[in-house]
Parts: sequence; C-alpha cells; structure tokens
Amino acid sequence: MTKRGDAQSRDSRKIKRIKPLLAVAALGTATAALAQMSVPAGLTLGSMSRVSPVLKAVRTHENFEPALAFPEQARAAAAKLAALRRHTGRAPNILILVVDDLGYGDVGAYGGGEALGAPTPHIDRLAREGLKLTSTYSQPSCTPTRAALNTGRLPVRSGLLKPSLLNDTADISSELLASKLLSQGGYVTGLSGKWHLGEKEGSRPWQVGFDEFEGFLGVVNAYQEEHPSQPDAAGDPELLEELRSMPGSRDLWRATKAGGGRSLGKINWENSRDLDQKFADFSEDFIRRAAKQGKPFYLSHNFSKVHYFNHPSQRFVGRSATKDVYRDSVIEVDDIVGRLTRLLEELKIADNTLVFFTSDNGPEEDSYPETGVTPFRGAKGTTLEGGVRVPGIFWWPGMIKGGRVSDGLFDMTDMFNTSLGLAGIDPSQVVPTDRYIDGIDQTSFLLADNGQSDREAVFFYNADMFVGARWRYYKMVVSEVQVGSGNVRDMGGLDNAQTIIPTNGFMYNLYTDPKERRSEMIAKAWAPSYALGPLLAVHGASLRKYPPKVFIRVR
Amino acid sequence: MTKRGDAQSRDSRKIKRIKPLLAVAALGTATAALAQMSVPAGLTLGSMSRVSPVLKAVRTHENFEPALAFPEQARAAAAKLAALRRHTGRAPNILILVVDDLGYGDVGAYGGGEALGAPTPHIDRLAREGLKLTSTYSQPSCTPTRAALNTGRLPVRSGLLKPSLLNDTADISSELLASKLLSQGGYVTGLSGKWHLGEKEGSRPWQVGFDEFEGFLGVVNAYQEEHPSQPDAAGDPELLEELRSMPGSRDLWRATKAGGGRSLGKINWENSRDLDQKFADFSEDFIRRAAKQGKPFYLSHNFSKVHYFNHPSQRFVGRSATKDVYRDSVIEVDDIVGRLTRLLEELKIADNTLVFFTSDNGPEEDSYPETGVTPFRGAKGTTLEGGVRVPGIFWWPGMIKGGRVSDGLFDMTDMFNTSLGLAGIDPSQVVPTDRYIDGIDQTSFLLADNGQSDREAVFFYNADMFVGARWRYYKMVVSEVQVGSGNVRDMGGLDNAQTIIPTNGFMYNLYTDPKERRSEMIAKAWAPSYALGPLLAVHGASLRKYPPKVFIRVR
Repeated sequence: MTKRGDAQSRDSRKIKRIKPLLAVAALGTATAALAQMSVPAGLTLGSMSRVSPVLKAVRTHENFEPALAFPEQARAAAAKLAALRRHTGRAPNILILVVDDLGYGDVGAYGGGEALGAPTPHIDRLAREGLKLTSTYSQPSCTPTRAALNTGRLPVRSGLLKPSLLNDTADISSELLASKLLSQGGYVTGLSGKWHLGEKEGSRPWQVGFDEFEGFLGVVNAYQEEHPSQPDAAGDPELLEELRSMPGSRDLWRATKAGGGRSLGKINWENSRDLDQKFADFSEDFIRRAAKQGKPFYLSHNFSKVHYFNHPSQRFVGRSATKDVYRDSVIEVDDIVGRLTRLLEELKIADNTLVFFTSDNGPEEDSYPETGVTPFRGAKGTTLEGGVRVPGIFWWPGMIKGGRVSDGLFDMTDMFNTSLGLAGIDPSQVVPTDRYIDGIDQTSFLLADNGQSDREAVFFYNADMFVGARWRYYKMVVSEVQVGSGNVRDMGGLDNAQTIIPTNGFMYNLYTDPKERRSEMIAKAWAPSYALGPLLAVHGASLRKYPPKVFIRVR
Repeated sequence: MTKRGDAQSRDSRKIKRIKPLLAVAALGTATAALAQMSVPAGLTLGSMSRVSPVLKAVRTHENFEPALAFPEQARAAAAKLAALRRHTGRAPNILILVVDDLGYGDVGAYGGGEALGAPTPHIDRLAREGLKLTSTYSQPSCTPTRAALNTGRLPVRSGLLKPSLLNDTADISSELLASKLLSQGGYVTGLSGKWHLGEKEGSRPWQVGFDEFEGFLGVVNAYQEEHPSQPDAAGDPELLEELRSMPGSRDLWRATKAGGGRSLGKINWENSRDLDQKFADFSEDFIRRAAKQGKPFYLSHNFSKVHYFNHPSQRFVGRSATKDVYRDSVIEVDDIVGRLTRLLEELKIADNTLVFFTSDNGPEEDSYPETGVTPFRGAKGTTLEGGVRVPGIFWWPGMIKGGRVSDGLFDMTDMFNTSLGLAGIDPSQVVPTDRYIDGIDQTSFLLADNGQSDREAVFFYNADMFVGARWRYYKMVVSEVQVGSGNVRDMGGLDNAQTIIPTNGFMYNLYTDPKERRSEMIAKAWAPSYALGPLLAVHGASLRKYPPKVFIRVR
C-alpha cells in the first residue's frame, strides 16, 4: 500500500510539473502553439506519461520514439522467435513488397478486387492467412515514404521530402539504411525495381546498403513524355530530344555492392511494359540464391506499377473487366505477389520469412481514369486518409496467426526497427546518437497472437509542412488539402487542389467519420488538450533537440 | 453451316427491325425519351437481344423480367439441389437476415469492422465461408426494400414507395408474398422483428403469408419522441401525450396465422434496448420447432437495430472502441448473426439452409454520429451507390463454395424468385398473369461453383421518381440527389440535400469511378445508346403493359 501510495504521489508530482504545458496545450492556444512549433521551456524527452496521464508510451532512449509497453506480448513474441531460431539456425528473411500508387480500396481484402473488376486473389490470400492492418500509414508521396521505410526517420529529418522528378535532387547518402545494418549483420540484401531515393553518385542503392540491385533510379515519369497520350511532346522530335537530355537516369541498372553498377539499356515507353516481369525474375533469382547460400535475406521488391503511365505486360492486357491499363496492371502486380510467395513455399522458407505488402501512398487522381480507389477522402499528395492510409499486410505462416485484423497504428518508419529487431540487432546500439529515429519495433504486435500495436501516435507531414497527428482514432490537423474543384461530385486530384486553413484546427473521429467530413475539435476539447496537444509538444521537442535537415513550415 | 447461316440472318433481321429504337435511344434523344418514359410504338416484351445485340437476357414469360441464360451453371445448380433433396428428403430452409440501415462499409468483410472499432467476426465468417456479393442493390429506404424482397416487384409496381411513419399508409394486402406461396407449398413461415409493410387490418404479417410473427408493425421511430436527445418532445408531457395518440402501433406483437395477433405490451425507449434479443430468442425457438417438426422453414429475421435511435442491450454497452450506441449495436447485431448460424450448425441443418445476410439501405447520415459508413458517395434516401449498395452474403455450407466473391448484380426482388425456386415452386405457375415480377431466380448464380449473376440490369427509383439503371459496370441516371451542403467536407444527409438535374444525364463507370464523381455519358456514348437506352425502353414497355400502382415521376 505504501509503495503504491508513493508511486501515486510521484505520478501526481510529475503531472503537476507539466501543468503549464497542459495549459499551453489547451484548445486554441494549442493550435497557435503548434503553428509556431513552440515547445514549453524545459520539456525534455522522457516517457509520454510525463506530459499527460492519458499518454502511455515509454521512451527507452532519448533519440528513439517512445513505444507502448506490452510486456506479456513482448515475451510471447520473443519466445516464438527464439523457438524459430533454434529450429532454423538462422535469422529470418524479410521480403518487403511495395506497390507504386496502389489505392487502399483497390485490394480485394480492403473492399476492392472483384468489386472493381480486378480481383487480387494472391494479395487477399496473404491478408486471409496473415495479419491485415487497417491503419498503415505512408507519407503522401513516393520518395518520402521510401525514405521513411528505409531509414526509420520522418522525411523532414532525412530531408527526402518530395518525389524527385527529372532534375534529381534527392540524396540519401548521409542516412543509415536498414539494409546497410542488415548487410553488416550477415544478411544478403537486395533491392528490386524502383529506387527513387537519389540518383547521385553515393546515393545509389548499392552504395548505401544493398548488396544487389536491379531496377531504375528515378521515377517512371522519366519516360512519360514519350507516352502516346502526350502528343505535344511525343510528336515533336526536337522537344522530345531536349527533354531526353535532361539530367536523370533512364537506365535499367544492374549492380552489386562489390562490382558497382552498369546499365542494361535505356528504359522507354515500349519496353517499360515488361519491367515488372524483369524485377520479378530478379527477385526470384535473388531469393533462390540466398536460400541456397543458407544466408538470411532482406529483399525490398518495389513495383514499377501501378504508377501512371501503366503498360501491362502482354499476358495481362485485357485481364480486368474494364480492360484498362490501370486495372490490368493491378492484376499483373497481384500475379507477381503470387509468384514470389509461392516461391517461398516451394523453397520451404515461407515459415522463416516475414512478408510485408504495402503501397507507397494513396491513389493518384490526376491521371484519371488511370487511377486507384480509396474509401476515404483525398488522394496521393495529401495527408487526408485517402493520401496516406495504405494496405498493410503481414504474412508469415506459422509465426503470424492467420485471419488477424487490426486497426493498430503502423507507420512506414516502423519497418526499419522491426527489420532490425527480427535480425537480433538492437538499433540503439548501432544508430549514432546524433539522429532521431521515429520508427518503433513492432515485432511483438506482429507475432503475438493477440498483439496490439506498440505505436501511440502517427505524425503527418506534407513535404516540409507539418500537418497534424493521429492518436487512437482521433486525427487533428492544422491545415488540409482539398482536392478537386470543391464540387462534391468532381474528382480533380492535386492539379485542382487548394490548401485550407481551419480557423481552429480540425479534429476527426476516424471511426464514426472515416471520410473526415465533420470536425469535432471543440466538441471533444479533451482530446486535443490532453492527448494530441501534448503529443505534438513532445514531437516539437524532439525536433528542437535533433534539428531536422529542413525548415519545417506550419501552414 | 446452313443452319448457322439461317440463325445469323434471322438475328440480323431482328436487329434491323428495331433500328428505329436505337435511333430513339441515341444520346440526348435517349434521355429525353426516358424523361417522358416514352416507349417506341410496337415494342413488345421479348428477349433483350431483340432491341440490341449487346443485350442478352432472355424472357421466358411476358410478365417476368428477362434473365441471362447460363445453361451449364443452371444444370450444375439443379444437380446439386437434386442431390441434396435426395439426401435430406425435403426442400431447403431459407433464413433471411435484414439489418436496418447498416452501411455497406460497416462490415469487416466490406472494409469496416476492425477499421471502425467495431469488429463483425460472425458476419465476416459467413462472407469467408460463402459467397460475398459486392453489388447487391436495395431500394433507397426501408419499406420499399422490404416490399421488393417479399414480393419480387419494384416498389412502383406494388405501391409501397416510402417508409410509412406514424400516420401509416402502407398496404401490402393486394400483393402476393413469397411467404404465402411457400406456406402453401409446405413450408413453415415466420417473420421476426421489423415489418413496416402495413399496419392496417389485412396488411399484417400473419394475414399475408407468415404462419408466425413476433415483432413490431411500424418503425423504430414510433417511440423516437421519447428519446433523451429530443427534449422538446420528451420534456413536454402534454405534447408527448398528443404525439402518442397519433395512429400507428407501438405494440410488440405476437401472432400466428391461425390464432391472430395479440400485443405483448407497448414498446418504449427504455424497453426497446432488448427488442433484438427478444427477436433472436423468437427466431431460435422458431428454428428449433421447425427442425423438430421436420418441415422446411422460411424465416425472415428483421433487426430493429442499427436504425437510430439505437439502444444496445446491456451486455453490448461499451463493446465498441468508440463506445457509442451505433457501433455497440453493430456488435450486438453481429453477435445475433453468430447465435442464429451456430444454432443451424448445432441442429445439423446448416447444410440444408440458405442464409442471406443484407441491409435494407445505406447508412442514415442525418443522425450523425449515430450513423454507418459507406465507401461510396451518398447515403440512405438516395440512389447514389451509398444509398442502395448494401452488403449481400449467401452462406450455405456444402452447397455454396466457400471464399467466393462476385460483383454480379443482385437485386432485392431476386429473393422472391430464388426462394420459390429453391422450394421447387415455379413462380410462373402461381403468380397471376396480371402482374409483373421484376425479380430473377438466382439459384444457379448462388449454387454453381463459378456461377455468374443471371441479372442483366438493375433499375433505380427513389420513391415514385424514376432515376436510372446499371448495366454491367455502367450506371446512368437522369437525376441525382446531392447530400449535404455541397461543401466537399460536410456530411449533411437528406435534411440538407438537393436534387440536381444533369443536362445530359450522368453515366458513371463504377469500376474506375466507384464514387460516381465523373460522368462519361458523352465520352462513352455507345453504352447509353446501345445498352442502357434500350434497357430503359423495354423497362418502360413493361410499365405500359403492366401499369404500376403509382404515377411515375421522371425528374
């Protein structure tokens, strides 16, 4: 009793100490404070319960994001992993499947598939036999999502804010990638397909951690000016030549860390149709060789599809009900997912391989009708749920219980910590203390039969603009992008978007209002005041202590 | 060769004969013609190929909707049914589960469940082990949907156009219900829960075909004025008394065809919370007794929930993540679905019982936050997909192959023909020839392992207003209801809706644009000209030949 009383009074003291913060974080003041990213003086980076009794995440290292602590599920997951290790004698393989611009609602398991005339039986199978996440968050676009996934850091910290187009500026060379740490830890590491994290010397996949690479460095847009739908460029040989002379690699690369890279030839509109088949061939070969070698592998398979302009491989033309290039390409992607997972089974290594299936952002509506579908509002390029809520499926027969569905939060950055955790590498021992890691090790969430997410909050940025956060099922934003013309019927995409500044901030209940249509910022003042406000204040403190590579705008 | 040539020239002659119709149905003219519901002179009710080569449905009786013919799947389904009949020695049971106002997106199998903090494991199980339909169409509101389901006729034909509120006008007494034909055919028939197809003497469930009934005759709104959220009425005893003296039954009825009905007492806000538990008890008892009797049963189980105002039974309070009455009630409904299907398994009659799970319309957004979710645009009270696209799951272990998903069209009216078909009753032999049946027997779609829908088109009405049709994945409308204020963010519901008249009609591709945001009426002129236009002309001819009970408005 005494001990408990002591603990309680210590808690009260703690909470008293941060009362000024709660006052600062009160409604109105909170959004003003956030707008300035101001942080109460003296706020240090302890566990979240220090700033509000409703927050629970525990911080174990100052430069690591705090995580929720579930000791029992952590023990259960660790026991499972140890048993597997005893059985296989090596660390588990990791296969990450990232589709480009696939909509949350495109996948059968998420309400699409047959309902859109493009069934996805292989992806659906992973969902059925594994863990289907309904709140996996990407960044609003390609490069930042891939940066987050590889580095465990938010794009404002790594500086990889936006998709680099032809005039490439991305540079990931100063970042530490999971692939590098895993390669050092005995893994064979490979990247297949799209890179888009820097074309510069020093920033290429085989120079930052991948033992092997086959793919392209930039973006599928690199050859878009040749597309038949763009006759203004495609039909003007002089302009076309000028555009082709822009910097930016149009090569299909083959590379190894040891031997460097070489071009297998130029990618153009015509041969782009078979890129994903080539990447699948490469990934199959990589997996076979790794299995033969008896070494664990980390393979990041990055589809070229279903980014516009899609050019489905001959065998998939006309396979969807609408026979359009987007949905035919969805079917091609699904088929490749089937090929790769079947191979794991054939090689009898499925039970030692974590498979993660996801997309890099929401559907691109500017290329309608070559666009995916989301049940939410907004699309790629926004932090509305339609832009950042992506499919997230974990499949690992024997290790992840089949048929699980969870709305627990999962951020792309979490793949960094989770991959290292599975390999038995403690990131706090290998990541320099000068940099902040936003990812969380979600191993126990994935592996415990009733595991809950270890993540307390997700933070939203659109390039260098701070937008807001989600805590539980509440999402608060200080700005919002409205796509289209504002007419309720019109699908416009970013080309017709406007940014609006809510007078008070918006806060949505994503369970009662998943389309973010009715703000309850004032009606539910306790949530911004006691949860989201304090969360953002501590997030701000992490940015002050570990200055990001870019200047952050707040509306 | 000669025979084939003959057939071809016959076909050509046929199509030539209806060329004037195709001209009438050309774009622009088509919508004008539809607007007047004018029908080309001399058009008779043959098979659809008579009016357009892209239409395939075959009409076997002039007063029955034409159906697509798939002889092979029809044979496969018939063989399955015959084998079952030999095994069980009796016709199969039919259990229809209709939730009130449940959103398409509320169910886990349709993208909701865990994603909204209200898992639906029992409903999801039916989807996983059965046939999940992604294009089941209801009417925009309660009474017309239930009328369609019971009579196989569109509400404009039966005259049951709108939910009747307190001043009840609905009257189904002159209609022929599936329950009546099945009761005559040796079934025991029961209705549990909500009726809402007429409170008048002669129009009550036990007077129109149900052997047994426990439930209420009207609408849950019958006691809404007592709800704590309505203090203007609830807090004014005099007004409350006046409202309560309005016509309209507030009784919980118990009735048998033989013995008539009696009141078990008045329903009020307080005791309404346990209504669905009572209905579940009644349905369980009904099923047990039917099984013991050895007679096939037809049971229509109609939930009171999740229509506002929800009052979850004590055991379900706080069971959802948001702990609100709507989502708690979703969980209660799911639990009851589990109870009833488990009972079928316990009694070892699941393999002789077709279970159909559905909702009567889309979510009711006017009662936000007590509202469901749809991934589509629009809500209850509209013919936008959000208003009429509902969950539709068929479960029948051993007879319907598990894991099937289909976007084949299914209209509520189809349950009439399908139920009779399963019972071995040919509706053309028992339905008087003075009335038109819009339903189609979908037995072969349901039972053949790769069955396709037998339905070629769905027609949309909003009460007495003709709105449009869907053919394959194209939907054409001549008017549209915009819910909310027109601001892209705002959720308004019908209370803030406006009807807009498209200059040219709207036509949406529901696969590339499931949210109906971008019309392609002109860009895809062939579809309205050669498919939707002719379909509507023939539909119009059916209305001229079999005059509906109400005058039809067209925008």
